[in-house]
Amino acid sequence: MAMTGVLRPGHAQVRVLNLEESVHFYRNVLGLVETGRDDQGRVYFKCWDERDHNCYVIREADTAGIDFFGFKVLDKATLEKLDADLQAYGLATTRIPAGELLETGERVRFELPSGHLIELYAEKSCIGNGIPEVNPAPWNAAREHGIAPIQLDHCLLYGPNIAQVQKIFTEVLGFYLVERVLSPEGDGDVGIWLSCSHKVHDIAFVEYPEKGKLHHCSFLLESWEQVLRAGDIMSMNEVNVDIGPTRHGVTRGCTIYAWDPSGNRFETFMGGYHPYPDYQPLSWTYDNFAQGLDYPQRKLHESFLTVVT
Amino acid sequence: MAMTGVLRPGHAQVRVLNLEESVHFYRNVLGLVETGRDDQGRVYFKCWDERDHNCYVIREADTAGIDFFGFKVLDKATLEKLDADLQAYGLATTRIPAGELLETGERVRFELPSGHLIELYAEKSCIGNGIPEVNPAPWNAAREHGIAPIQLDHCLLYGPNIAQVQKIFTEVLGFYLVERVLSPEGDGDVGIWLSCSHKVHDIAFVEYPEKGKLHHCSFLLESWEQVLRAGDIMSMNEVNVDIGPTRHGVTRGCTIYAWDPSGNRFETFMGGYHPYPDYQPLSWTYDNFAQGLDYPQRKLHESFLTVVT
Amino acid sequence: MAMTGVLRPGHAQVRVLNLEESVHFYRNVLGLVETGRDDQGRVYFKCWDERDHNCYVIREADTAGIDFFGFKVLDKATLEKLDADLQAYGLATTRIPAGELLETGERVRFELPSGHLIELYAEKSCIGNGIPEVNPAPWNAAREHGIAPIQLDHCLLYGPNIAQVQKIFTEVLGFYLVERVLSPEGDGDVGIWLSCSHKVHDIAFVEYPEKGKLHHCSFLLESWEQVLRAGDIMSMNEVNVDIGPTRHGVTRGCTIYAWDPSGNRFETFMGGYHPYPDYQPLSWTYDNFAQGLDYPQRKLHESFLTVVT
Amino acid sequence: MAMTGVLRPGHAQVRVLNLEESVHFYRNVLGLVETGRDDQGRVYFKCWDERDHNCYVIREADTAGIDFFGFKVLDKATLEKLDADLQAYGLATTRIPAGELLETGERVRFELPSGHLIELYAEKSCIGNGIPEVNPAPWNAAREHGIAPIQLDHCLLYGPNIAQVQKIFTEVLGFYLVERVLSPEGDGDVGIWLSCSHKVHDIAFVEYPEKGKLHHCSFLLESWEQVLRAGDIMSMNEVNVDIGPTRHGVTRGCTIYAWDPSGNRFETFMGGYHPYPDYQPLSWTYDNFAQGLDYPQRKLHESFLTVVT
Repeated sequence: MAMTGVLRPGHAQVRVLNLEESVHFYRNVLGLVETGRDDQGRVYFKCWDERDHNCYVIREADTAGIDFFGFKVLDKATLEKLDADLQAYGLATTRIPAGELLETGERVRFELPSGHLIELYAEKSCIGNGIPEVNPAPWNAAREHGIAPIQLDHCLLYGPNIAQVQKIFTEVLGFYLVERVLSPEGDGDVGIWLSCSHKVHDIAFVEYPEKGKLHHCSFLLESWEQVLRAGDIMSMNEVNVDIGPTRHGVTRGCTIYAWDPSGNRFETFMGGYHPYPDYQPLSWTYDNFAQGLDYPQRKLHESFLTVVT
Repeated sequence: MAMTGVLRPGHAQVRVLNLEESVHFYRNVLGLVETGRDDQGRVYFKCWDERDHNCYVIREADTAGIDFFGFKVLDKATLEKLDADLQAYGLATTRIPAGELLETGERVRFELPSGHLIELYAEKSCIGNGIPEVNPAPWNAAREHGIAPIQLDHCLLYGPNIAQVQKIFTEVLGFYLVERVLSPEGDGDVGIWLSCSHKVHDIAFVEYPEKGKLHHCSFLLESWEQVLRAGDIMSMNEVNVDIGPTRHGVTRGCTIYAWDPSGNRFETFMGGYHPYPDYQPLSWTYDNFAQGLDYPQRKLHESFLTVVT
Repeated sequence: MAMTGVLRPGHAQVRVLNLEESVHFYRNVLGLVETGRDDQGRVYFKCWDERDHNCYVIREADTAGIDFFGFKVLDKATLEKLDADLQAYGLATTRIPAGELLETGERVRFELPSGHLIELYAEKSCIGNGIPEVNPAPWNAAREHGIAPIQLDHCLLYGPNIAQVQKIFTEVLGFYLVERVLSPEGDGDVGIWLSCSHKVHDIAFVEYPEKGKLHHCSFLLESWEQVLRAGDIMSMNEVNVDIGPTRHGVTRGCTIYAWDPSGNRFETFMGGYHPYPDYQPLSWTYDNFAQGLDYPQRKLHESFLTVVT
Repeated sequence: MAMTGVLRPGHAQVRVLNLEESVHFYRNVLGLVETGRDDQGRVYFKCWDERDHNCYVIREADTAGIDFFGFKVLDKATLEKLDADLQAYGLATTRIPAGELLETGERVRFELPSGHLIELYAEKSCIGNGIPEVNPAPWNAAREHGIAPIQLDHCLLYGPNIAQVQKIFTEVLGFYLVERVLSPEGDGDVGIWLSCSHKVHDIAFVEYPEKGKLHHCSFLLESWEQVLRAGDIMSMNEVNVDIGPTRHGVTRGCTIYAWDPSGNRFETFMGGYHPYPDYQPLSWTYDNFAQGLDYPQRKLHESFLTVVT
């Protein structure tokens, strides 16, 4: 009870065009902690305050984009139940054996009608955040190496059929709808923010004709002052910034969108409110989405709608 | 799934010595929103960003202290199941009919071995936070009336038998242990912080010989700057401050403890990290609890251990 | 000694297209305190934490823009000396009698080669910030009415001949150059930031073919969190935002540029470092001014260069 | 004009009991930059964002305390004039030759009636803050090494005859009184805060029977969040904290007082308002100084009044 089923976003695997350039970027600019490499050549990272072995995996490829996004579930029984539920709902699932991702147990993978691969898993080695479990300090030096987000927070994916996607997340996986952007005709949603917790989003989708696209993976910072610091570090390192620093109207989050060296957008953000599953979702009208995206500027940045990997 | 069972702290009922003085304090100094009064003379408040009708209820009495602390559960079926589970565990429960608390459904009440009355309920009228559900602004004027916390966040209760209390919360109600203070002998815990979410605490207990005591109800602020503002407002209104502004080592939260006009301690705080039920609890040794309480000062304020209502 | 001569920016008089709409804007959205109206129909404002009677005066006119910008000087003797110095330098000065601006002493006015009217004055009635001078609280309710800046901080003016302007400010008025943007050819400056204090700017100029233009008047906020709040209030009130929230590379200030209802740009900002007259000026190359303007985005917003009143 | 005469606090020389322990503390915990050692065994530090060679000099001795506190003046002519003015006022001055302090020009030294040695000097080598003067970043890695204050901001000295001290600072050196604590009888001041700028204090004094005592040297931080970070670092390094984090009523500054390993108190603080020499001083009554010292707690910490070096 309380927190059961799907716990949280656990890992994303993202394609990069140049591995070592990307390792430098994610380690020293974004400030993730490199935790391993595997025989496929993938490099594993975690955020400094996360305890599990990895949250972000990169592999070199000819095109940027996301391979899959995974959620940690409570335990193995939950994994089995959710696999059965997904199949009962009519979705094909596959099993990836434990160890295929470093320090990660067996994964249940399925494809969304939006073309994205989602994974569930129950086990990932706890390697800690580098702070003792007895008399812990609130942080350590890793917090100030690069932008140094606290955790992989969520992702925003672009693809078709998000109404069907929403049903899978809410009817099978226990998520609830937190916010949405209404279609121009008001007959559906063109963007949905979904939570399996009391975060404003654990995953989000925007309706888009092409399948399987990544808008951004998002990393959590502690404060608005840390968002400013993130922007400073981006500029010092000539990172291409898309939008921000600013506040989203949607979720109230305070954000910068920028691109990694391969063109994968990422977000560093803080804030938002604390929704619960008994809350009614908030809605943004299509003609006011500019305010939902960039609250102070009320400006519909073209790149938000069109640039994905 | 995801968030099920017990959702969150929902209400506290607290005794005050002078009703109108207290109404002034909670409305204009702490900055809660008064939402109603009932025929028993109780006055109801909510935090500005909460959507349910009330979170804090005061009644005039000869002694200060807490009457009961309630949690909202997911739905009526959950309420029935938890009631049955509590009874199966060996705890007597009673039903308080819907409407006994304004705008609140039927409550299941039971007494902890620490002497505190805990309630579960599935229904409380949603009256909103005063911001439209379509194209919502991130806040409104209510956010700046008094200290104006976002939500009732948790409480800390003092009483005996907290090992038994912990078992009830973790084995029956789905909470997990986030942090603890070890006893001097290391054979148990003298303080426990419990979560039913990914907050660092939804309720906490400290071992204490006398039953049913209130250490503090805690209200969440948005930032460390808002904690400073809270301290300013306390001083402007001659509120008695106990500890802070400071950071707790335990939970990393940033805090001020102060007393309402009747001597009930309350906390205004922000921060903490984001635990999940798969996390190992963090521990504080008894001889280092000073750092756990007041991280910068490493000072064991006597009042923390001895002043309760 | 120490602080002598010119003390600080004291007042700006700005033209607006609709007086009452502008009064509403400056009083309730920007959150200035209205302190008077005169028989010319001008409306006077001060920032909540300023002690002198006014810092910002608006009058209704057919075109937006700035009439004059004034500096308070230490005393009457200083005023006489600076008048004589200006004349000795070859600038014509005129005297505006005490009382022509409400609660303001005699003013010495002169025209810069950039076409702007600058004033010096030694006296303006101290009306206080509404907080007692004995046992003062750090702030009062006025701090949270609208955006509520602390003080008129500086202005940025556009016009020709800024090299000559710089000589007047540094050789006659005791200012020093804090930062500059070098011309493309490196043979001069296209933008200059000047200080008569240890602020990063008390006035700034950008080379521009047309005389007497206002880029913005700037108002100081206390923190980056207050800049976020300012952006929220702008959006809630449908204020047109130009740039920000962001950090300037130039001065390190953290800023939002926006427009009043008449199209006069204003800035709400915080931060910057603490220069002194013995510091060497910092320089920005022309090809990198994008980073100087918008540090995180490194983007040369077209409006910054072309939209003035 | 504008900023003339005395510019700012330039250096303090402080006695420590163990040199290398102190070097470690000031370099790695407080986060100053070590810039040199001289043949007397003194170690020199500057704050990361200062440009002059040193601001804080320590030497090993049997007792802790302050040797002297120095102010930088505008130029050599100013130095000569102030020396003459001091002598004309009746104070004996001595000259310390250039180079006696590393990278520092000739100093004019005099003793205050409070028993403190004050120095004036016009020259100290500019070594920069490590950031290029062309296209400067807002900060560099030095900002995050230890607490890393921006600048030596002021000091508070305890000694007798502060009324006479005030006259010297205001009548000879061009300072003005910003705030004061009235004596119990109201016939004088027991504490005075003096500025030669628009900072709330460049130096402060408290009446005390013993001559030449140091209450604290103060270092400026950028934000309240940085004050929290300072407190964290103090606790991680087992620094003895005296008071804070809290807000002073006096000056509105937000502060932590702590002790170096030799028992010299230092302050890390931010904030305050922006006074000018035409402002009336603010006053605190003796019976309300608790609020002036610790605004939220309104508590007169005994150590503030009695512990000095």
